Amino acid sequence: MKQAAVIMAGGSGTRLWPLSRRMRPKQLLHIVEGRSLIYKAFERLHATFSPQDIFVIALAEHLPAIAEELPALPAENLIGEPTGRDTANAIALAAAILHERDSETVMGVFTADHLIRPTDQFVEIVRSGFAAAAENADALVTFGIKPTEPHTGLGYVERGDPIAPGIWAVNSFKEKPDLDTARQYVASGRYYWNSGMFVWRTSTILAQLKEHLPGSHGAALKLAQVWHTDSGPGLANELYPTLERISIDFAVMEKAPKVLVVEMALDWLDVGNWTALPGVLGTDASGNTGALKRAAALSSKGNIFVTEDDHLIATIGVDDLVIVHSPDATLVCHKDQVQRIKDLVAELDQDYGGAYS
Amino acid sequence: MKQAAVIMAGGSGTRLWPLSRRMRPKQLLHIVEGRSLIYKAFERLHATFSPQDIFVIALAEHLPAIAEELPALPAENLIGEPTGRDTANAIALAAAILHERDSETVMGVFTADHLIRPTDQFVEIVRSGFAAAAENADALVTFGIKPTEPHTGLGYVERGDPIAPGIWAVNSFKEKPDLDTARQYVASGRYYWNSGMFVWRTSTILAQLKEHLPGSHGAALKLAQVWHTDSGPGLANELYPTLERISIDFAVMEKAPKVLVVEMALDWLDVGNWTALPGVLGTDASGNTGALKRAAALSSKGNIFVTEDDHLIATIGVDDLVIVHSPDATLVCHKDQVQRIKDLVAELDQDYGGAYS
Repeated sequence: MKQAAVIMAGGSGTRLWPLSRRMRPKQLLHIVEGRSLIYKAFERLHATFSPQDIFVIALAEHLPAIAEELPALPAENLIGEPTGRDTANAIALAAAILHERDSETVMGVFTADHLIRPTDQFVEIVRSGFAAAAENADALVTFGIKPTEPHTGLGYVERGDPIAPGIWAVNSFKEKPDLDTARQYVASGRYYWNSGMFVWRTSTILAQLKEHLPGSHGAALKLAQVWHTDSGPGLANELYPTLERISIDFAVMEKAPKVLVVEMALDWLDVGNWTALPGVLGTDASGNTGALKRAAALSSKGNIFVTEDDHLIATIGVDDLVIVHSPDATLVCHKDQVQRIKDLVAELDQDYGGAYS
Repeated sequence: MKQAAVIMAGGSGTRLWPLSRRMRPKQLLHIVEGRSLIYKAFERLHATFSPQDIFVIALAEHLPAIAEELPALPAENLIGEPTGRDTANAIALAAAILHERDSETVMGVFTADHLIRPTDQFVEIVRSGFAAAAENADALVTFGIKPTEPHTGLGYVERGDPIAPGIWAVNSFKEKPDLDTARQYVASGRYYWNSGMFVWRTSTILAQLKEHLPGSHGAALKLAQVWHTDSGPGLANELYPTLERISIDFAVMEKAPKVLVVEMALDWLDVGNWTALPGVLGTDASGNTGALKRAAALSSKGNIFVTEDDHLIATIGVDDLVIVHSPDATLVCHKDQVQRIKDLVAELDQDYGGAYS
């Protein structure tokens, strides 16, 4: 069977402002080892797949920047959505396009904005996921991250009966839990973080979509038929606004008759806001973390310094700050206040008409 | 008698790093109302003097930048010193050049790096200083700033007998005092801050220099004779390194037989380091001071934001910081630590070979 990997890169958001902007979402930022997260996602998959079998689905307006990040990716493998309609619709469209290309395809779905390591373990687990989807024609397979802490910001997947080494039937999907519940989940050893990564036959996911989300399914099939023709973009512009915004978890995974989970026990990091960087990049002897080339810190502890270019950030006598340089704006924010960056950006939108969004 | 004004712009230093650099000293920074301090110094004098009678003496390497700041100034009025030899030598050279131009000249000496306001009061006091120097042919006249606080970082001038309204004979010059002494000075009402601004006939200051600093006097006369010829720069390069580094106060003022002080009671501000800016520019309701066009501050108090360009500085939840953006470096420094900026620059010199000096 044909194998293909789809990177979902529809993310946007302002939590990594001033680097992240509407036209430069998180997955395009060069904050880890001078590379973007989408480049790293592509690189991890490239260890298994040829570029011809790697696809990226993202907002159409982001495709030029993504193409620049991923020069090895064939241009026709970039799938642009005119507007964001959540993961169910992105997956429906990608599945329909892949199915149109080859109806005997096993399709993996991957995220663009997580840092996952080491790559060799990832590759091995992904391969076992593809094998499980090939062997279980009627199953939807999800990758479950072995939890390292009682995270309350993630959904969980409860495993049931074992199917094969490292693979279980899924008993249930759980919404973001409170801390006590999360602790119980982690202690039980039977729960995984919902990774948002999946693998299945295109025929299987399309059948499930047809049953549970028929509108999106129908639109995806129509679009796939004309996708590589001149009328593709026009039809997408017409159909997309009519689609329901819904995640694949709500729309399908929680309702599907046969779902398997493949355990993924490795470093899986979401750079959800600036304070995640020390966990991703480590800290120096003073507890400072630098995603940059040039820094100087006198009597400064526990700070996070970020810039994508050669700009120097220098500090004297400051602790626990997030300092981010971008070409047109600098943020200096106490580490405890990063959740207010969205308020700041909203205020800037009012004052400067979106110049900093 | 001819009247002329000389702006001494020899200053350098790193206390306003990262904006101030070796090639962009403090007086060239655009931090007050979008103008440089030297521009403002020129503008104040321009209210009284035609540009033909305003001169600037500075390090030769700074002249191109100064010429750009002061397009109205005739190029031949820029006097370049090959290396800094303190105020006595700068004044000697300027006096000799002016004396060569017209031996019947009353010459005022002004600083480039102070903020003085309001201009109309300044103009009036300067005029009365010029009148005093014209009337008292043998006197050196200094401007004494009426002190507003017991400043321990300045020298003081003690006045003696009154000569005319607002003008006194000088009893003595005092070094930087300790705090108790400074308090006594201010309380007495008889002491002024030594402003570094003077007015005298060129013949009088040259005679005093001849007596008290004959080497510098001789060099200045030699240089003045060939200043506007091709051999001027070469001779300056030859003579300057041999000159003693000494201030006009030590060399002449403290020894001269007749010194007068003209009281200058107005705003006289030295932007000696970043923490001087709130006094110069004022603060907003949160105690923040901005020498910039675009800022946004959430829950942030007592900060000082500086940039010369359109760059935005945004803060959340930070207090009492100095945040300075420059094109290649950003400084975030606690207000209590600004005296360590020179240490930081020294460290950067080691790490980056002077790229940030």
